[in-house]
Amino acid sequence: MNVTITGASGFIGRKLARRLLDANALIDKNGREQRIERLILFDVVGGPDELSDDPRVALVTGDITDLAAIEKAIPSDTDTVFHLAAVVSAGAEENFDLGMAVNLDATRQILEISRRHGTRPKVVFASSCAAFGGDVPGVITDMTARTPGTSYGTQKVIGELLVNDYSRKQFVDGRALRFPTVVVRPGKPNKAASTFASSIIREPLQGERAVCPVTPGSRMFLASPRTIVENVLRAHNLDETEWGPSREVTLPGFTLTIREMVDALERVAGKTVVDRIDWQPDTFIQAIVSGWPPEFETAKATNLGLVRDNSMDEVILGFIEDELDGVFAA
Amino acid sequence: MNVTITGASGFIGRKLARRLLDANALIDKNGREQRIERLILFDVVGGPDELSDDPRVALVTGDITDLAAIEKAIPSDTDTVFHLAAVVSAGAEENFDLGMAVNLDATRQILEISRRHGTRPKVVFASSCAAFGGDVPGVITDMTARTPGTSYGTQKVIGELLVNDYSRKQFVDGRALRFPTVVVRPGKPNKAASTFASSIIREPLQGERAVCPVTPGSRMFLASPRTIVENVLRAHNLDETEWGPSREVTLPGFTLTIREMVDALERVAGKTVVDRIDWQPDTFIQAIVSGWPPEFETAKATNLGLVRDNSMDEVILGFIEDELDGVFAA
Repeated sequence: MNVTITGASGFIGRKLARRLLDANALIDKNGREQRIERLILFDVVGGPDELSDDPRVALVTGDITDLAAIEKAIPSDTDTVFHLAAVVSAGAEENFDLGMAVNLDATRQILEISRRHGTRPKVVFASSCAAFGGDVPGVITDMTARTPGTSYGTQKVIGELLVNDYSRKQFVDGRALRFPTVVVRPGKPNKAASTFASSIIREPLQGERAVCPVTPGSRMFLASPRTIVENVLRAHNLDETEWGPSREVTLPGFTLTIREMVDALERVAGKTVVDRIDWQPDTFIQAIVSGWPPEFETAKATNLGLVRDNSMDEVILGFIEDELDGVFAA
Repeated sequence: MNVTITGASGFIGRKLARRLLDANALIDKNGREQRIERLILFDVVGGPDELSDDPRVALVTGDITDLAAIEKAIPSDTDTVFHLAAVVSAGAEENFDLGMAVNLDATRQILEISRRHGTRPKVVFASSCAAFGGDVPGVITDMTARTPGTSYGTQKVIGELLVNDYSRKQFVDGRALRFPTVVVRPGKPNKAASTFASSIIREPLQGERAVCPVTPGSRMFLASPRTIVENVLRAHNLDETEWGPSREVTLPGFTLTIREMVDALERVAGKTVVDRIDWQPDTFIQAIVSGWPPEFETAKATNLGLVRDNSMDEVILGFIEDELDGVFAA
């Protein structure tokens, strides 16, 4: 299998790449398990360098709004594209045109290039639960209208619609996965409005203070990086007949208040760690987060065999194991 | 008010233009009734010539995929754009790239040009109930997921999403209206998969034979041209505060089987007229029409004061009055 990951230096991209290289197996379009022959890791910032020594890896650095760069990243023998590159929520809200160029136009270009190859490659598109916002019912189901309250959410829903139609037209074999808010994200805070949900776990565990810009009662729909990567692979490997006419799905997640997240942190790491959180309300962030519905019923995902985290405690322990070499600052 | 209609030579465009010129009034963004100062009628085929003598009318002929042409059609002093131009369902299915260019890219260009003017003009976008398809519930509500089963439907839903987001960002004051299947459409059959629904009424009333390509039990969600134009104007004239965050709405319609439509024709015009229908199933058209859900609950439209036809008999009588000078071939 010749595979491309866009946004490969992002935290999901890195984990997915590592997982693919370790497993050295993907299910091809004929339902057969195949080795990874080539893995193109495409990102605007270059890298991820830690994977560059693997002979199967080709790093391609480029701007995803540059057609020539995407064409280089998706050669005609590509079997699978994992399209993760995006301008995140607050970033797309601040710079509307950049969000449109990266989240909408580049997604369309990736579908067009895949179509032009004529080989109907698999395209796995990372969408987001930001697809839902505004006056939504108490529980979001697979048949709830996508009513995004942000430009990011709008662009992601448009991407889902394109993935569906390009798949129906037999141009690609697409799958669009709505990610819950991912915790605990490693690295530094980014421009996602949800970035604090990871910061309030990650920074205190490393002895640093973190700001929580929303109220303790704010509720979020969450999934861990481990579970997201697992579901991205499962969604890829499913036979297209299992998808049916609609190629989009909300990934399973779990709903907690910020208070419940912090309680889990205290159970896992103790009160000293939790006391490193500063509660400083930010009306801009609170408004965006309050616009995201917290309760989801993900029946389609369950039917497709996609999986859910067991508990926040386990998610935090997984972060400590994967990202902190098992050690936190008590 | 300086007004532009795209797709002005289409049958809804012509009726809307005539109605605007006759009424000589629209509600502006401040809620005040204003006269029509200028009406730009834009269409790729030129015309409509019957309105060209009116001193308020400017005909602009051009291809909506040509940016310079759209810029000419929407000058910087434009207060309102009625964006009706489209490649219809079977047309967009046959020529995917043309559908994307006209239904998606041109809609985005119209929103971009309106944004660039910096005056936040009203943009009324003609969407379609083809937004819904596939495995939908028995009754479609305002909160049912848009799951288009055609490229046309996909492109229209994307247009709705863009109208919503451009409105939320205060770039335009948009409204996206999902049209039911319009009966009775005057003129000749077009490439819409639904065109037969008008043909089976229109042709027999003029002494000509017509083909019905679907089964008598096929059910459709319908509205008359008179009611569509009335609702387009009402939707335009509503204050934006009445719309709330979501600028999209399914217009009211009524659901009938083809058999019930033909029964109404027989009541209005007699058996000789009805016997001019040839029942010749077409699997391509049947498949598209069967994918459109027939039952809608349009609560939001009702709350906004939008209106519904009273009966199919009245719709047929309206067609005879408006398009046949009150005379049909008995």
